[in-house]
Amino acid sequence: MNRITKQLHKMSKNTPELSKIISVNTKEPIENYRWITLQKLEYSDPLGQVRTYEKVTRMTTSTNGVDAVTIVPLLKTPNLPTRILLLKQFRPACGKVCIEFPAGLVDESDESLLKAAEREMKEETGYTITKLIKQSPVMYADPGITDATAVVLTCEIDLSKPENQNVKPDLDDGEFIEVFDVELSELEKTVESLSKQGYALDARVAGIIDGFVVNSQLMMDWKCD
Amino acid sequence: MNRITKQLHKMSKNTPELSKIISVNTKEPIENYRWITLQKLEYSDPLGQVRTYEKVTRMTTSTNGVDAVTIVPLLKTPNLPTRILLLKQFRPACGKVCIEFPAGLVDESDESLLKAAEREMKEETGYTITKLIKQSPVMYADPGITDATAVVLTCEIDLSKPENQNVKPDLDDGEFIEVFDVELSELEKTVESLSKQGYALDARVAGIIDGFVVNSQLMMDWKCD
Repeated sequence: MNRITKQLHKMSKNTPELSKIISVNTKEPIENYRWITLQKLEYSDPLGQVRTYEKVTRMTTSTNGVDAVTIVPLLKTPNLPTRILLLKQFRPACGKVCIEFPAGLVDESDESLLKAAEREMKEETGYTITKLIKQSPVMYADPGITDATAVVLTCEIDLSKPENQNVKPDLDDGEFIEVFDVELSELEKTVESLSKQGYALDARVAGIIDGFVVNSQLMMDWKCD
Repeated sequence: MNRITKQLHKMSKNTPELSKIISVNTKEPIENYRWITLQKLEYSDPLGQVRTYEKVTRMTTSTNGVDAVTIVPLLKTPNLPTRILLLKQFRPACGKVCIEFPAGLVDESDESLLKAAEREMKEETGYTITKLIKQSPVMYADPGITDATAVVLTCEIDLSKPENQNVKPDLDDGEFIEVFDVELSELEKTVESLSKQGYALDARVAGIIDGFVVNSQLMMDWKCD
């Protein structure tokens, strides 16, 4: 039986860990660009060959090294099924209205990623996070082109609490966000339908659904035991 | 009881759908950059105010409009628990070795996204996809800065098939990839441990794990019924 293959390239000179960055050029912002810039870098591959690479980087990375937080907000009401909150937001970079979770850049003033999440949640939706269920490791949104990072905080929003009654968002000038929610068991169907209607789908939302699909495979294993 | 809020901004003039792109400048690649470029665009917000925005775009988007495919490869062996295949790859844009799924840009020559996935899977791991379990909608990796898109194909790799015996990757010059796999039930623990060791974590891998976490909330609902 063919078993995979931790050893496939192991112990060779070709392991990815032997690569290293040699230099990064174009550190200065490209003329007239304020938020993002391109950089060209040289790196050494595992065989010692020098190669070049083009990347994009945010000029707003906070001192704690994480660009952004994303909140997966689970709405809890006693004795009712869990709902999940989503946003519709126009994303100029995509030219489309995007289906996404509340999210935002981490400020220098944020004491912690949870504080950043609480602030963004409040601003974009009016809701107060009542419990942190899980904080993800730092994730790279699109490592082929950018070092932009995010941390995902899966949170509970208890709708029976006083602070979550009659809430109102507090949007910045230029933010136009529509908040909506669906029953968690309807998430996949709703999101696929919105995608067919022409809405853009953020990878964090899509990732949750991919996780459901993979999880169902895991549950099949357990049934077979 | 406070119920959310589909209607929060609904029927106002502020709905995100009223936004539109007016113009995109810097269509020409920025000098000496071949793979990605910056663009500055003007758009009209829902109130009709003209605003500017900076984005990054790939110069390699295929004619079918999707930049890349990612494969979530589930390794199946009769009577054994499902395993999931991952890669370690040095990502110059991040300056780190990244934990990720097999993935690649869609070629003009690809007849379909599944064909692209089959080609990338074969090249990067040697394995042949034996079944497509689920194809995701088009997802936007980081809609705040880029229109880069990907489709995720969750696939079965039947290790008992002849084509999946004694496989060998067929890497391009300059690709240094290490293939490894873990039992699906160990994915979360393994990935968090690798993140702590300093590996970068691709958002598609992290998304699967976030999906597990949210799925467990859904299962709690069912238990309460």
